[in-house]
Amino acid sequence: MEKHNIKTSEQHTAEGILYTDQYQLTMAQLYYRHGLHEKDALFDHFFRTYPDYGMHQAGYCVNAGLEWLIDWMGSVRFRDEDIDYLRSQTGQTGQRLFADDFLGWLAANGTFESLKLAAIPEGRVVHPGVPLTSVQGPMAMAQILETPLLNYLNYQTLVATKAARIHQAGKGQLLLEFGLRRAQGKSANAGARAALIGGADFTSNVGISQVLGYPPKGTHAHSMVQVFMALGEGELAAFQAYADVYPDDCLLLVDTVDTLQSGIPNAIRVFESLRRKGHQPIGIRLDSGDLAYLSIRAAKMLDDAGFPETSIVLSNQIDELVLLQILSQIQDEAPGYGLDADHLIKRLVFGVGTRLITSDGASALDGVYKLVAVCDNDQWIPAIKISETPDKIPNPGFKHVWRVYDQRGLATADVLSTRDEAHLDSTHILLRHPSDESRWRVIDQSAISRIEALQVDILDGGRRVYEFPSLESIREQRRSDLERLDPGVRRIVNPHIYHVSLTDHLWSLKLDLIRRYQKL
Amino acid sequence: MEKHNIKTSEQHTAEGILYTDQYQLTMAQLYYRHGLHEKDALFDHFFRTYPDYGMHQAGYCVNAGLEWLIDWMGSVRFRDEDIDYLRSQTGQTGQRLFADDFLGWLAANGTFESLKLAAIPEGRVVHPGVPLTSVQGPMAMAQILETPLLNYLNYQTLVATKAARIHQAGKGQLLLEFGLRRAQGKSANAGARAALIGGADFTSNVGISQVLGYPPKGTHAHSMVQVFMALGEGELAAFQAYADVYPDDCLLLVDTVDTLQSGIPNAIRVFESLRRKGHQPIGIRLDSGDLAYLSIRAAKMLDDAGFPETSIVLSNQIDELVLLQILSQIQDEAPGYGLDADHLIKRLVFGVGTRLITSDGASALDGVYKLVAVCDNDQWIPAIKISETPDKIPNPGFKHVWRVYDQRGLATADVLSTRDEAHLDSTHILLRHPSDESRWRVIDQSAISRIEALQVDILDGGRRVYEFPSLESIREQRRSDLERLDPGVRRIVNPHIYHVSLTDHLWSLKLDLIRRYQKL
Repeated sequence: MEKHNIKTSEQHTAEGILYTDQYQLTMAQLYYRHGLHEKDALFDHFFRTYPDYGMHQAGYCVNAGLEWLIDWMGSVRFRDEDIDYLRSQTGQTGQRLFADDFLGWLAANGTFESLKLAAIPEGRVVHPGVPLTSVQGPMAMAQILETPLLNYLNYQTLVATKAARIHQAGKGQLLLEFGLRRAQGKSANAGARAALIGGADFTSNVGISQVLGYPPKGTHAHSMVQVFMALGEGELAAFQAYADVYPDDCLLLVDTVDTLQSGIPNAIRVFESLRRKGHQPIGIRLDSGDLAYLSIRAAKMLDDAGFPETSIVLSNQIDELVLLQILSQIQDEAPGYGLDADHLIKRLVFGVGTRLITSDGASALDGVYKLVAVCDNDQWIPAIKISETPDKIPNPGFKHVWRVYDQRGLATADVLSTRDEAHLDSTHILLRHPSDESRWRVIDQSAISRIEALQVDILDGGRRVYEFPSLESIREQRRSDLERLDPGVRRIVNPHIYHVSLTDHLWSLKLDLIRRYQKL
Repeated sequence: MEKHNIKTSEQHTAEGILYTDQYQLTMAQLYYRHGLHEKDALFDHFFRTYPDYGMHQAGYCVNAGLEWLIDWMGSVRFRDEDIDYLRSQTGQTGQRLFADDFLGWLAANGTFESLKLAAIPEGRVVHPGVPLTSVQGPMAMAQILETPLLNYLNYQTLVATKAARIHQAGKGQLLLEFGLRRAQGKSANAGARAALIGGADFTSNVGISQVLGYPPKGTHAHSMVQVFMALGEGELAAFQAYADVYPDDCLLLVDTVDTLQSGIPNAIRVFESLRRKGHQPIGIRLDSGDLAYLSIRAAKMLDDAGFPETSIVLSNQIDELVLLQILSQIQDEAPGYGLDADHLIKRLVFGVGTRLITSDGASALDGVYKLVAVCDNDQWIPAIKISETPDKIPNPGFKHVWRVYDQRGLATADVLSTRDEAHLDSTHILLRHPSDESRWRVIDQSAISRIEALQVDILDGGRRVYEFPSLESIREQRRSDLERLDPGVRRIVNPHIYHVSLTDHLWSLKLDLIRRYQKL
């Protein structure tokens, strides 16, 4: 067995159609052998629980990743080298694992062009148990898609969600994504995109900024100051050098030596010199210590020196809980220094690295992809999986996904119905809990301002039937969806639980199926 | 500002030389403008703390990622389109951010070929504060490398470490990496490689298996059983279908309906039929419920049916703590069923997904890249960064990194010395704590069996001067390094703290520098 290591040129193999689990291929061959491979199947992709960060849990997620998935699906197929590789695989007794007839079928049909895909668009607020993506098509290819679909969608939704929370805890102040160096490998680019979707305004990652059309942001590192110091010059010389090169973009990191004794006084000297030359300094960055205390002291010193408009960028292990603490501390302590806390907060900018791009505390979203129907003789048969944990039993069959808004215009529930129920138009809508028969709720039509279908068609027979919105539109969608959430659902700690419900009709279908399989 | 989304064809931009932070480029231009860009600098890469998973913390790390970094460094340069992009960037007042002379320099010199790089090889056990990688060369390019170097090395070391822990908690039983679907985006491939380095034996990820020359592993999913059920057939029919196609590789997932009532009895029926046809069944997989209890019951049922050698694969949210619990429970409970616990454990295989590939509980390694020396007029000047937290002050200057083994052949300390100290050959070695003057230890030469230099030269003037070992050799290196760790350092919970020490000479240099800068 030859063992060697990846080369960049081998990316096409490692990130192509074989970017899936081995068992998808062995199952696909089984379907082929039993004549099931071209039977239409329907799989739903959904997540089961909001990210739980330990001491705090999300009350909503922000959907992301779809366009990159669809782009990947359109760019991959079983190439000759992929088929050759499968042909070379052997089982326990040395016999070939994949037979020529199956490999011939894969070579001829092994693309995702046969699939129909509907999904909730990116940037939308989404909740557990709601089908975010529904894939319909020949069993074999729909099965092979499971792994890459989850890989592409789980992570971006996880990071978009974390970004939305951090943006919210930061009271909407400018948020910069700084996580490239600590990201989990090449997830960094998808993570930067997801962060922008969820609430970051810019990223320091240059390559992905170019691709996405956003200007990258950054200041300077401690190493720049260290270089000048090692050469016998000081922090002030380093700051002056920076101001010389970037007179209109001068943002200085002030904590290399001593923030209050050296960094801020030196920055102010440089700012004064810039001002004399007609330039407007941008601000300072604090990257260590008690960030709330230091930003109060810095604001005071900058105010006193006549720079009340300069920004104060905070970085260093920031997440939504740290921001809750920092902003609360500023509210408490700023008045003692004669500062207006709200004004101080308005000049803050947050640089967030590790804890955003890795979704610290909840490193994965538990998205799953479950078979919910199989077509036999032109008849769709709902499928189910029994579990001892009722929460884990998926909702069977073709479904519509609705969002119901109350008279305040706020989302009050997401409702899954069977496909036969074209509209939720009865006088009273009975909303069933998805797994607990004893829990239900009735909404009167008069309490409803609007009912919205959430899924849209994306692919039909491999053809895109959807125009992907700009990242700016996706960000706008996220903003408006978050505004239409109850503040209790949106809050950072102990959020209210948003209702995801089944219609009575879907609930009855689910119960029938459970009973039928329990008798088997 | 045009906003659009990534295409696969844009990967070269997003994963090329601009896979770095914006501030590396603005600093590089500053160095250029001040004539510092071609001054030689020395940066050390090291991590500060072992991964802390919450209730448990690592006592060692396993180094990984180096070959992929070196491959990336050799494959990227500032292309025309990268330079054009930088030329288009503007600052706050609309002026260009990067000037033509600097961009001309980048276009001509913007590769990593000018750098010299030494590193501790992959698969080696490593500890906090020890330079894993040292980069020497022109300031500008050494600075730009910071972000991608950390991105490439942090994650693989994190996952190799987690894999080593899980492998150890699983008492060395076969370990399968199943995390592709829950990995943080495209980190999945690097994660699978790192898992193999650290302790996984195979991965389910097909593409990376091909690239690395390992056979991918997998069984089947619940969906296969569901398909047969939806079509009016049962679990048994699904199992029979699987056995028909894979008679010599028959491993059945037994928890789709009911593990004890349906799954295992059906699997046994299929195994009996296989045996009659002269095939040897492989085993079963359990993916839900009380895995220790179910594996005892399964083992008993398989034994009674005459299949005492079949494997029992356990999956579902497994990590090192879960394995500690499962194996301890089996030790306690198996005898009550008349089973030998050790024999049962020997037939277990572990399939580990999310918690390995995302390093659940510690989603990032805190690797940093710090300036430790600058060359001025052919004179290397040690550089330092003062911090209020003494632990965070890097060790200055050129250093040697030694591992000292005691008379048992176990590693007893990693020692950093200055470059002048060619060998640690005095009668007594005084080992200084790296930040606390009051803590030190003396080792007598007679207590030492061996002293080993840990860093090797990898790149010199961009040329590889190192032959990268096979993945199998890297795994062997990991095995032997782990064997040479004290069991107390290796243990899963509350490990002993391994000593990382400075020679007295290096400690004095560090103290001098701190005092000098504190006076500045």
